[in-house]
Amino acid sequence: MLFSGRVFPIVRWSRSYDLRTSIGDLIAGITIALTLIPQSIAYASLAGFEPQYGLYASFAGGFVYAIMGTCPQINIGPTALLSLLTFTYTSGTNPDFAVLLCFIGGIVTLVAGIAQLGFLVDFVSLPVVSGFTSAAAITIASSQIKGLLGLKFNAESFKATWEGVVHHIGDTRMQDTLLGFACCIVLMGMKAMKDIRLKEPEDDKGRRSAKIIQRSLWFVGVSRNAVVVVIASVIAFLVYEDKNYPLMLTGSITPGLPTPRLPPFSSTIGNTTASAGQMLAHLGSGLMVVPIVGIISNVAIAKAFSKGKTLDATQEIVTLGVCNIISAFFRSYPVNGSFTRSAVSDASGVRTPAAGFYTGIIVLLTLALLTPYFYFIPRAALSAVIICAVLHMVDIAIIKKLWATSRLDLIPLIGTFVCGLALGVEVGLVCGVGVDILLLLYYHSRPPLEVELVDDGIIIPHYAVRPIGGLHFASAERLRARLVALKHSKSLQPHIVDTIHVTSDGNEMRITVPNGISGTIVKPLKVLVIHCDALSRMDYTFIESMKMVVSDWSQEGCVIWCDVKPAVQEQLNTVLQQPLFCNLEQLSTILTRNFAIDAHVNNTCSDTPL
Amino acid sequence: MLFSGRVFPIVRWSRSYDLRTSIGDLIAGITIALTLIPQSIAYASLAGFEPQYGLYASFAGGFVYAIMGTCPQINIGPTALLSLLTFTYTSGTNPDFAVLLCFIGGIVTLVAGIAQLGFLVDFVSLPVVSGFTSAAAITIASSQIKGLLGLKFNAESFKATWEGVVHHIGDTRMQDTLLGFACCIVLMGMKAMKDIRLKEPEDDKGRRSAKIIQRSLWFVGVSRNAVVVVIASVIAFLVYEDKNYPLMLTGSITPGLPTPRLPPFSSTIGNTTASAGQMLAHLGSGLMVVPIVGIISNVAIAKAFSKGKTLDATQEIVTLGVCNIISAFFRSYPVNGSFTRSAVSDASGVRTPAAGFYTGIIVLLTLALLTPYFYFIPRAALSAVIICAVLHMVDIAIIKKLWATSRLDLIPLIGTFVCGLALGVEVGLVCGVGVDILLLLYYHSRPPLEVELVDDGIIIPHYAVRPIGGLHFASAERLRARLVALKHSKSLQPHIVDTIHVTSDGNEMRITVPNGISGTIVKPLKVLVIHCDALSRMDYTFIESMKMVVSDWSQEGCVIWCDVKPAVQEQLNTVLQQPLFCNLEQLSTILTRNFAIDAHVNNTCSDTPL
Repeated sequence: MLFSGRVFPIVRWSRSYDLRTSIGDLIAGITIALTLIPQSIAYASLAGFEPQYGLYASFAGGFVYAIMGTCPQINIGPTALLSLLTFTYTSGTNPDFAVLLCFIGGIVTLVAGIAQLGFLVDFVSLPVVSGFTSAAAITIASSQIKGLLGLKFNAESFKATWEGVVHHIGDTRMQDTLLGFACCIVLMGMKAMKDIRLKEPEDDKGRRSAKIIQRSLWFVGVSRNAVVVVIASVIAFLVYEDKNYPLMLTGSITPGLPTPRLPPFSSTIGNTTASAGQMLAHLGSGLMVVPIVGIISNVAIAKAFSKGKTLDATQEIVTLGVCNIISAFFRSYPVNGSFTRSAVSDASGVRTPAAGFYTGIIVLLTLALLTPYFYFIPRAALSAVIICAVLHMVDIAIIKKLWATSRLDLIPLIGTFVCGLALGVEVGLVCGVGVDILLLLYYHSRPPLEVELVDDGIIIPHYAVRPIGGLHFASAERLRARLVALKHSKSLQPHIVDTIHVTSDGNEMRITVPNGISGTIVKPLKVLVIHCDALSRMDYTFIESMKMVVSDWSQEGCVIWCDVKPAVQEQLNTVLQQPLFCNLEQLSTILTRNFAIDAHVNNTCSDTPL
Repeated sequence: MLFSGRVFPIVRWSRSYDLRTSIGDLIAGITIALTLIPQSIAYASLAGFEPQYGLYASFAGGFVYAIMGTCPQINIGPTALLSLLTFTYTSGTNPDFAVLLCFIGGIVTLVAGIAQLGFLVDFVSLPVVSGFTSAAAITIASSQIKGLLGLKFNAESFKATWEGVVHHIGDTRMQDTLLGFACCIVLMGMKAMKDIRLKEPEDDKGRRSAKIIQRSLWFVGVSRNAVVVVIASVIAFLVYEDKNYPLMLTGSITPGLPTPRLPPFSSTIGNTTASAGQMLAHLGSGLMVVPIVGIISNVAIAKAFSKGKTLDATQEIVTLGVCNIISAFFRSYPVNGSFTRSAVSDASGVRTPAAGFYTGIIVLLTLALLTPYFYFIPRAALSAVIICAVLHMVDIAIIKKLWATSRLDLIPLIGTFVCGLALGVEVGLVCGVGVDILLLLYYHSRPPLEVELVDDGIIIPHYAVRPIGGLHFASAERLRARLVALKHSKSLQPHIVDTIHVTSDGNEMRITVPNGISGTIVKPLKVLVIHCDALSRMDYTFIESMKMVVSDWSQEGCVIWCDVKPAVQEQLNTVLQQPLFCNLEQLSTILTRNFAIDAHVNNTCSDTPL
């Protein structure tokens, strides 16, 4: 039962897995690895760990995703965003804390997935996501400036980093700076190659070679991180002069594969041993923030690549949780899907999530064979890789789009961005969601109300209003005030009319004409017609304010409810004495006749004083 | 300019102030005083101060309200609710803190009024207000149990009070208990007299005397607090045996009028002097909570007595602020309008806010002449007055009403009530508003969507949907998923049709029939018609998800936007490539012809991979 295709989609797609598909996946897997390996080494340094931790985080997630994932493009592994957050929450400790964060964060994610809490992601609007990633990208890029310049100081936040840079600018190491900027330029140049479009040649042969050139250019562009890191390391090796090296290097690291073991529930820092409780207390809000950010990013990426197919968000969240839990057994820090790598995967013609399996194998091989050579990777090259990877995350285009479509959305965007830079990206996210909710509430205290004074000389002149949406406490008072003000409007003259009895009886309206139609003249009437077709629900506060409206209008007129939905009708029946319901057709019948409505709508708000 | 009738309504109504009106106000003023004086003495003990502080709080507000108030019925003075809150925030200090709270709270209220923040009151729904007042009433009544039983212990919260009562139940003083319960019974009996309705006699004379009897009964009922306190004091005086009295009495107090002076910005408690900063730090959140509660209560009362007249909420809030600021100069603790006294005022036939002026004069006379006699007021009698005054605030009827109309509103009601009792009434209020907002957000992530499969054999079969309300980020994903699912629904078969060109050009739709109407058969079409008449605004997140819907449907059909409002149309034009707009009439023209719509709606979501 559990091994069904719902929980393990591999059961479904593996049935039709053939050579052609596997070759597509293999090519994609290798291509992803070329991006993933240098990125993961760089991100590990961003998170504050030795390079091998980036690789530890890069294989288990891919294996799990191959089994449980639904979106072939997604590649699970270390990302700039989660590396930054991991650094924020574990700075000053050791990797044990990050592994525990990965494990507990995975459990939180899994529980959120099982509890169907994915809908909470809906409350994070696109402008907030955009402001968040932009702020994160700038924070991350800033944190790498010191690596690029060969500076050494401790700083976590955006502000502290730039203060540190300004303060230590005199210590800039020329060789590192040169290498760093050179790497940046090469990376950007190679990235541009990826997007070169050749002119379409005329003959068949030309077309074919053009395609090969195009494809090669693209492949060089995609493998740019690997190329740059390898070349920079070779340069570092060549200029190396035993302990007196001109470049800041990664230095010696633990070689080989990580031994699978339980996530650490105690850890030694210096002379003190932290218990599980102390470790969790240190991680604090990170235990919630890291999973939330992971879920939001993953759902967003999955949505972007689902291409119209309905997305099983719950399955994606559950899978992400399991990826983190299993990864924690291999000393991984928190992982999630990377947008860059997923795009590479997509462009490489990936067919199934199996690509993650091939990528994982290559990462394991790298760990087993190549770690000794990591000693020579220059820090400046890693900084360049990170900066070039995150800078495209800064989304400037959205400002123009928002200006054109919905200017108000600039507020949450800017709020998230500014708070994110000033107070930390996770605080920015919370602020942005808060601003969005406040705007929503503000709008809901001002619901749209179409008001029309109908006076064509044929039917009884009346106001026709049409409130829209589910109406509730936030809008109750404002709507009541507007409807009461309508009554006092000079535009609607009371209409002196003959009499006719109208009683409401459930859905149906009976019109009984009494003896002597010529009848007596009754009191002047002001009529308010409330069209309720777009009204789906009212809460108690709103119903009570409607009661006040009816009580107010009834003094010199009456209120007719048109096209009321059954649920709303029941609510009105409970609080009003014989409200007048009708549908559109009945309404015109009633109003066209030159008769008054001897309404049985009384002052139901009888707080009569003594 | 400032002395206009808007800021000082007295300028308006005093022009037509004649003898008849003033007699009405005078009678009301005296009647209010009979309720106000015993209540204010009791409420002062509830707030933890000597009785004269209740009277200090009872006159200045009335004077100010006479000049600036708009609602004749409202009587400003000490209330059970604000007395309880004052006790919460100043307990363990001295009246200086309460006077400062009154002053700063008044300034906060005034600023809120001037800044037009009154709309924030709209976010407190009726169920929350009801739960809040019920919890407050029960907390207040509980706090008086010890006075009723003659117990002495310190306890602030609901829980601590009842624990104290249970713990000290052995110390119950029989005389106090007897007097307390006797007072309660008399108060309830006299309150019932107020509501006695005599049978209508047949002759004129009988009718007149019946009216007099009725009126007298009512007056006795209204003056019940004064009667009970006076009788209880007389009894206490009679049984008094020099320092060895059988009843707990109020004891000696500072006689006479308060000297007008600046609110205290430093205060001495025991041997230490608290600076203004320390005092404000001690008052803490009270500086916001007290004004907010005052504003909510006052607006609610003004709304209840405005009887359909439009209420100038801003003016009411400004006036309340000024009342508190001026009162603070006469050593008052925070004041606001009292529902009980406003009801008495209304029933006494009050005409203008001048009634508050007469009440104020009587309070000043009482302070000048009667304070020495306050020594003998038994504490049990005051407790009885408070308990009987607040118990009617417990609103049980609303549960039945909510059950009948809107059951979901029971959640904020019960949430506010339970949190209010368990954690303090002000925390309950915040919780209730929070729950309300969460429910609102929950509903807004699930907007109603009318879906209809139109397939009558005449027109092109299509889905017609009608989203309702302002659509935004919270509902974007859910709606997108539903609309995309519609496309995959088996019910809608693609329709093979001839061709017709439709281009959209601003508001107008041009239908161009190409050469050869018999035409060629185009691809099968699935049509989605989105009726947008109830759609007033979209935010960026929603627009983007609509873009995805269009991109998805365009693959094998098209999306037609019907009856789009100009603002929404502009938004859609920005993100979609030539969206198809039409009105209802055009829609039927398009769909009735057996032609396909060679839609210019392309896949606008072109994140085309390499």
